[in-house]
Amino acid sequence: MSAGPYIGVDMGGTKIACGLVDETGRILARHTVPTERIDTPEELRDVLAHATREWRGAGHAPRGIGVGVPGWVDAEAGLVRSLVNVPWDADVALGPMLTDATDLPVILDNDANVMTLAEARLGAGRGRRHVVGITLGTGVGGGLLLDGALYHGARFNGGEIGHVSINARGPRCPCGANGCIEVYIARNGLVRDAKRRLRRAAGTRAAREIERLAGEEGDRVTPKVMARAADAGNPLACAFWETMGERFGAFLVSMTNLLNPECFIVGGGIAKARKHFFPAARRRLQAEAMNDQGPRTPVLAAKLGTKAGLVGAALLAAERFG
Amino acid sequence: MSAGPYIGVDMGGTKIACGLVDETGRILARHTVPTERIDTPEELRDVLAHATREWRGAGHAPRGIGVGVPGWVDAEAGLVRSLVNVPWDADVALGPMLTDATDLPVILDNDANVMTLAEARLGAGRGRRHVVGITLGTGVGGGLLLDGALYHGARFNGGEIGHVSINARGPRCPCGANGCIEVYIARNGLVRDAKRRLRRAAGTRAAREIERLAGEEGDRVTPKVMARAADAGNPLACAFWETMGERFGAFLVSMTNLLNPECFIVGGGIAKARKHFFPAARRRLQAEAMNDQGPRTPVLAAKLGTKAGLVGAALLAAERFG
Repeated sequence: MSAGPYIGVDMGGTKIACGLVDETGRILARHTVPTERIDTPEELRDVLAHATREWRGAGHAPRGIGVGVPGWVDAEAGLVRSLVNVPWDADVALGPMLTDATDLPVILDNDANVMTLAEARLGAGRGRRHVVGITLGTGVGGGLLLDGALYHGARFNGGEIGHVSINARGPRCPCGANGCIEVYIARNGLVRDAKRRLRRAAGTRAAREIERLAGEEGDRVTPKVMARAADAGNPLACAFWETMGERFGAFLVSMTNLLNPECFIVGGGIAKARKHFFPAARRRLQAEAMNDQGPRTPVLAAKLGTKAGLVGAALLAAERFG
Repeated sequence: MSAGPYIGVDMGGTKIACGLVDETGRILARHTVPTERIDTPEELRDVLAHATREWRGAGHAPRGIGVGVPGWVDAEAGLVRSLVNVPWDADVALGPMLTDATDLPVILDNDANVMTLAEARLGAGRGRRHVVGITLGTGVGGGLLLDGALYHGARFNGGEIGHVSINARGPRCPCGANGCIEVYIARNGLVRDAKRRLRRAAGTRAAREIERLAGEEGDRVTPKVMARAADAGNPLACAFWETMGERFGAFLVSMTNLLNPECFIVGGGIAKARKHFFPAARRRLQAEAMNDQGPRTPVLAAKLGTKAGLVGAALLAAERFG
């Protein structure tokens, strides 16, 4: 990142964070607002204008703004095309709006791209030029750093790795395709699979143990419950994560054959259970990728945690405007 | 392509062609040798040295050599790592060897990459910056032109699109993975599927008609036989191509979600039957790709035919050394 701080904006489903970030990725100052209080882009504009004034008043000279958007953007036009988990209208000219309010250049990108950029530059992928970033959570998001730069494709739709299919005749995904990796290994798919396994094993000691743990979580069978059960060696939970890892591994094989990245970086809430599914995923990747690339393609845990969104957004601006 | 002719070398399974190609992609001169007569890289070196002397004697001044290799190369080192259909040893330093013999700089690449480059620059994809090239034949090969340049990945293994899986629990592919698209839509997979359909429909008029056509081809049920049957409206053959198109379409959906190319360019022997499977493939792509990208991503037939290999190899050299 070149000299001078940049402003990063991380638009999450529960909160929107604006931060002043220096060239090393350190967050100098931060404003956080619950997403539910930002009903319109104008409200975000006002929050950011206020923060920028305050930071300038404190002697900082921010040089540009990067925004990580949970949805589809047109970065060139500064347009938010559609959003997930944020109830704005479609086709908002967010870039020009923020520039008007702050006199700073603005660059937008998808939030998973932004997190990939942060991890590639300052996190688990430091120094790498070919990185596939994957976030496992309510969805499967991702970003592609190819030949040293974020890859967007023809119309900024590239990198939708959650919607690469691992089974062309598999269950329908809300996106319209069948058997997308997201259907299997994002939160909803995992919960569905866990419940199916519990029904099949009803009455066994392993099932009862998981039901007891679910009881502690408000009777919800969550990935966290399944991780706790696997921590205790519960065979039903271990088999559940093994299957998850094998499916994830199959996906990593295809991505390796297609893109031959230097590494995968895996973050998001589900990745907290990585010790339960990374081994099966790595085993499949190592056994099945072509030309012996599997053993040379590490599957790494993301390092920056929740600050990746903010830091990556600022990095985006630094690389564009620095 | 910049001024001055370049030499292209197209190493095929049946013949190896060396050609002098001008900046417009016109082939000025060509030497062709059966592959079976080129048992060692030294023999290719001698053929190329001879051709280069001859072309220089005729007043041409070639500026570099590009080689399309049916296998895995290390382009930076000029190394052929492994080959398909050419019985050389592994890890041949072909680049330095050809430079020694001709005093010209040499660049190697995978043959499917080279064909993609030719089609993107001078064929069906002229002017596009994001192209997925696909060759359907005995295997499924491919090349990725991303942000205007061939993409290779970390160790020149990128673009192995035939080994993207469409079914993680599908039949084993010789590469080691399961359900690779190549298993389903390359020649062997198609023949297997055609035979299975014939067995199931044994004795029907449609099956008898296909058996009659196969008789004319030495009793072999080939994609060509199935295409001829479909030409005549044979329902068994039409269903066969419909399934092939749907599988191909599922693959195109994943590739669109991941890479968002401006177009797909499809060549190779199987693509001759495109009128029978492009419609189903396009229908699926248009219906299922995210953010309405399907209708905006044309599936095009390759234009350059068999000369794509030679022209693309010369282009490779022109873009590297021009």
